[in-house]
Amino acid sequence: MHTLMPIGGAINHENPDIMREFIRRAGGSAARIVILPQASAEAGTGAGYVKQFKELGAGEVLILECPSREQAGTPAQIEMLQVASAIFITGGTQMRISSLFGGTPVEAALLEAYQRGCLVGGTSAGASILSKTMIAYGQGGPTPRERMVQFVPGLGFTDRFIFDQHFRQRDRLGRLIYAVAAYPGAIGVGIDENTTAVGEDDNLITVLGSGAVTIVDGSQISATDVAEVTRRKPVAVAGLTVHVLTPGSSFERLTRKAELPALLLEE
Amino acid sequence: MHTLMPIGGAINHENPDIMREFIRRAGGSAARIVILPQASAEAGTGAGYVKQFKELGAGEVLILECPSREQAGTPAQIEMLQVASAIFITGGTQMRISSLFGGTPVEAALLEAYQRGCLVGGTSAGASILSKTMIAYGQGGPTPRERMVQFVPGLGFTDRFIFDQHFRQRDRLGRLIYAVAAYPGAIGVGIDENTTAVGEDDNLITVLGSGAVTIVDGSQISATDVAEVTRRKPVAVAGLTVHVLTPGSSFERLTRKAELPALLLEE
Repeated sequence: MHTLMPIGGAINHENPDIMREFIRRAGGSAARIVILPQASAEAGTGAGYVKQFKELGAGEVLILECPSREQAGTPAQIEMLQVASAIFITGGTQMRISSLFGGTPVEAALLEAYQRGCLVGGTSAGASILSKTMIAYGQGGPTPRERMVQFVPGLGFTDRFIFDQHFRQRDRLGRLIYAVAAYPGAIGVGIDENTTAVGEDDNLITVLGSGAVTIVDGSQISATDVAEVTRRKPVAVAGLTVHVLTPGSSFERLTRKAELPALLLEE
Repeated sequence: MHTLMPIGGAINHENPDIMREFIRRAGGSAARIVILPQASAEAGTGAGYVKQFKELGAGEVLILECPSREQAGTPAQIEMLQVASAIFITGGTQMRISSLFGGTPVEAALLEAYQRGCLVGGTSAGASILSKTMIAYGQGGPTPRERMVQFVPGLGFTDRFIFDQHFRQRDRLGRLIYAVAAYPGAIGVGIDENTTAVGEDDNLITVLGSGAVTIVDGSQISATDVAEVTRRKPVAVAGLTVHVLTPGSSFERLTRKAELPALLLEE
């Protein structure tokens, strides 16, 4: 199985259900977790995650150190990724990851690890970078407007989902709608803080955490002027499908069906 | 063989060497060319290319008609693409193509055609759309600056090359450098007007036409502040490799080597 675990940022470290789920899927006491802290500008980011993962019972937790492109691809780094059971990408600025690792042997080893079944997760910037074309930055606001979203190529674990984070906290529905209108071949996945949209085999999304995941599916768009508008004007879109998924809900890409928790439906 | 033929716009229709090369590679009098005119807002764009391709000896030339997403994926359209020997995407606005065809059966049929060996070419917007993450719009100028380039997911014939067009005519070196600094995993290919960068098997680029092709290779970047700059300030990049390739020159992605025409070197 191929599993992605994008997290919407602001993980609740007092009540770390999301961290526990990551460790469980990584193999628990047998887990070998590799942390990529390069998105962060703060020196202690990697060590903070090592400490917490270990406290929560993860077997082995290592930091992949790599301060520059020239140092990307050492035998030690590649071997670390070859034996990892999980990779965790911290928050910060997603373009620090794309500009540092793009085209290096580290990028290739990350994608190979995912292909062989290694869990790949990340929070905030670490969630965005998982998409082939990622949202690098943009503006908040509920209405899609021209130039609202700035894409950059990401690491490319999936080209079927575009992940956005801090979603309702930073009012990012407008920019995600813009992204999907511009290219309805990918599904927008807006992840709230302390929430994760676990993705299995590039198809099934399952929600865990304390917030919601907003799915923006453009496959049924009948008309849009996204290619015509200029000067930051609002963009018109007809026929978007939107699902707001709370924990326990899921969405399947191949059938485009959302399922709500059974408990909710029985009440 | 898998062949892409991105053209930098402003094809010289008085002296159509590029059109002739496209027809030759499409099979000449046995060619079955399908034209996608949807990037253009002008009604006669498709018919103009049909006329010229036929005058230059192409066997069969058809227009794929598709005014809306709801009409994308008819049996007639899919069959047309299944038997095509070449697909030609006209100029206009590249987001008209991504927003119209993204996620539809037409997109899937275009990619399948390329995979089975069908030639895929396009001019201006039709060149940009060939990249997996495409340059949708941006500003001109020689110096890379923050927010200078606006990416959107394209049709995805290649994720190893990012094509830009009207390259020296519109002074687009700055934005192409920005794009490569943000993600050095892809090579920037800036194509001048009436010039083509024929791409074979996602590896070999060969230049034809009256202008040049500028290759921006970021694999040796040692440092950049692309992830840090704000407010449209200039971006610093150390270690870019740039090749300016005139007709008859070539560039190989796997070896990162440029070759100039033998004639030039003998002089």
